[in-house]
Amino acid sequence: MDSYARDRTFVPPGRPLGVVLAQSRDDVVATMRWASEHRVPVVPRGAGTGLAGGATAVDGCVVLSLARMTAIRELSPQDEIAVVEPGVITADLDRAAREHGLMYAPDPSSYEISTIGGNLATNAGGLRCVKYGVTRDSTLGLEVVLADGRVLNTGRRTMKGVTGYDLTGLFVGSEGTLGVITAATVRLRRAPREMATVAAEFTSLRDAAAAVSAIVAAGCQPSMLELMDRTTLQAIDDWKNIGLEPSTRAMLIAQAEGSADEMAALCGAASFVAVSSTPEEAAELIGIRRLAYQAKERLGQCLVEDVCVPRSVLPEMITTIEEVAARHGVMIATVAHAGDGNVHPVFVFDRGLAEPPEEVWTAADEVFRAALDLGGTLTGEHGVGLLKKRWLGLETGPVAAELHQGIKQVFDPLNILNPGKAI
Amino acid sequence: MDSYARDRTFVPPGRPLGVVLAQSRDDVVATMRWASEHRVPVVPRGAGTGLAGGATAVDGCVVLSLARMTAIRELSPQDEIAVVEPGVITADLDRAAREHGLMYAPDPSSYEISTIGGNLATNAGGLRCVKYGVTRDSTLGLEVVLADGRVLNTGRRTMKGVTGYDLTGLFVGSEGTLGVITAATVRLRRAPREMATVAAEFTSLRDAAAAVSAIVAAGCQPSMLELMDRTTLQAIDDWKNIGLEPSTRAMLIAQAEGSADEMAALCGAASFVAVSSTPEEAAELIGIRRLAYQAKERLGQCLVEDVCVPRSVLPEMITTIEEVAARHGVMIATVAHAGDGNVHPVFVFDRGLAEPPEEVWTAADEVFRAALDLGGTLTGEHGVGLLKKRWLGLETGPVAAELHQGIKQVFDPLNILNPGKAI
Repeated sequence: MDSYARDRTFVPPGRPLGVVLAQSRDDVVATMRWASEHRVPVVPRGAGTGLAGGATAVDGCVVLSLARMTAIRELSPQDEIAVVEPGVITADLDRAAREHGLMYAPDPSSYEISTIGGNLATNAGGLRCVKYGVTRDSTLGLEVVLADGRVLNTGRRTMKGVTGYDLTGLFVGSEGTLGVITAATVRLRRAPREMATVAAEFTSLRDAAAAVSAIVAAGCQPSMLELMDRTTLQAIDDWKNIGLEPSTRAMLIAQAEGSADEMAALCGAASFVAVSSTPEEAAELIGIRRLAYQAKERLGQCLVEDVCVPRSVLPEMITTIEEVAARHGVMIATVAHAGDGNVHPVFVFDRGLAEPPEEVWTAADEVFRAALDLGGTLTGEHGVGLLKKRWLGLETGPVAAELHQGIKQVFDPLNILNPGKAI
Repeated sequence: MDSYARDRTFVPPGRPLGVVLAQSRDDVVATMRWASEHRVPVVPRGAGTGLAGGATAVDGCVVLSLARMTAIRELSPQDEIAVVEPGVITADLDRAAREHGLMYAPDPSSYEISTIGGNLATNAGGLRCVKYGVTRDSTLGLEVVLADGRVLNTGRRTMKGVTGYDLTGLFVGSEGTLGVITAATVRLRRAPREMATVAAEFTSLRDAAAAVSAIVAAGCQPSMLELMDRTTLQAIDDWKNIGLEPSTRAMLIAQAEGSADEMAALCGAASFVAVSSTPEEAAELIGIRRLAYQAKERLGQCLVEDVCVPRSVLPEMITTIEEVAARHGVMIATVAHAGDGNVHPVFVFDRGLAEPPEEVWTAADEVFRAALDLGGTLTGEHGVGLLKKRWLGLETGPVAAELHQGIKQVFDPLNILNPGKAI
């Protein structure tokens, strides 16, 4: 049962009673009825790629895996929607859509291994959401099994609709605490025709951040605007030898429909700019960014964090992270979905340790508080899970906390759905 | 008090105790504290442009007008956000944003007279939402006064964020039944650079619908794709003499960034195509569409309906509406936000009547049921209010209804906020 008890965090899991590998909605209904009758906690999970401990088992629970519910029940090019089961791998849905000139826009970095169900649970973001929004923005309706085993259909198949409260949006991002999603009606979008890709190296972080602002302000509408710091680039270079210049402090990778010339010109302060002229070259440039996590994992264990700030204060946020790293002698390698102000400081610590050492938590605490002080949030796209629960109250305050508990009580009066997570 | 007791529907209002013209959040807090203490119902309202009776007074209520809270508290071009009070006129916010090369995308047809607060209450759509989404998609965070007078801040100032349940999305579209919104942090977007506008006349509705599908499928990404039927065009022509050809059965007005040539070519089956080459010409073409409601109001009293269906069945929906009109001898003039499948059949009835005659309700009932049978929804953007409550259960079912009541109980245990509306 061990591999079903944990996600991608180091959080020590509890010991489950057993694992259900659901293959149908009826399996989920049976599980929830039984769990309600016996008051047994249920921890739903997808592929277990979460980074906040949301899918970590609790003692005495049933782990309910949706990973075998992999049907794409429907894909309508005319209506630009698909109806999918939660175990569908995110990139598989995207590939199925592309056969019709469409795409499924949300693309968390883990999209080749993460499931739609997990994406819905955390309201996952990704690289493309600077243009196309997060998972909730692509979700039209849900089929949900409630804590007592009843089946609820929320939302719609249409682009718009305002009948009743937004239960669809409420389930998305609720980290398995309100119900178990067994199908989703998602919006597909036209795949863009021609993409231009630019990679630019900068000798200062501030120049890179200025280029981000300039690209957004010029109306280039990038569908990707990724920033990597020196520590990240160094880790990639040590592994793959990308020919990193000693003076490079940051790299920006931008992609937009149309021509690359305008974006390249807006990176005027860069020490080096590469422009792709073919899809293969573009894939190579973006490939550098996609190496980031693996490169860091070579350095040690990783606590992957996920603050998000208003874009205008992105330089302050990243500078603060560098100062915190230096002050506490902690290695922090940072990548950012810069167009969204979503910053992933990755705290690297010794592989021999079971949990992050005290100085990592102290440093993380300072980073979280700085993000909130800058008008930001604790988590842009990973969720609260277990890892960020101690900071939750700082952001939401006591009135919201009371409402969260009230809503939880309406949906799950026995508190058996993923207890102790998210709220 | 009469003018504060009703919205734009004919629903006979109850008699309020009085009207509060709030000028600040503290006025709202005082009102809600007093109302809670005395268990007096409160009906919040903006400009009263609603089309579903959501702002209609109930007997013995206090009408709480937010129309005087008109401050744009902040507008940040860097972060592309604004913080606005609920009484701000929608088009005024858009104009303020345009001074910085930005726009506020949601544009209900009433946007020159409707308020942001009313838009939030109904999750209003508009002409541009085929590209930019509805009000909820532009709402990042809210300041809300709860039923007991406590103040809640939801959401964030950042583009992404997944801390806690999506209370922001829950308040949007809840028609004043969960809290009173006193400020909203909204997302602004880059205003498009060059717009191409095309108007095309068709001798059959099916050809017009085929052009809609073709324009979407070609990836033109229209930011406006409006369809008008013969009855609507006739009403406009009778009033403004637009030179309507006898053979014209439908008109399509499309707008997109870039060149008009592709869209015009995709209207190949049209009997006449006009392409704008200047912003003035574009405004003239779109002006025809903006005359639609006023033109219909010249014909009699109007019940404005608001079904939304998957785009692929738009022709079936409109054909059904025509059949229903003929069967019951009811005049129905239809416009559609065709790119969204959002159809507004306007039932015109005798000005002398206090309420729609029985045959109008029978016809409306058939239209609603047809929309649901086609996989659609009762209301794309106007809300349920009072007018559509009798059909609500057909769409949401009993499980959702129970959850709606449970959520209502959490936020408003005394049931004083806009009682009897929406759910």
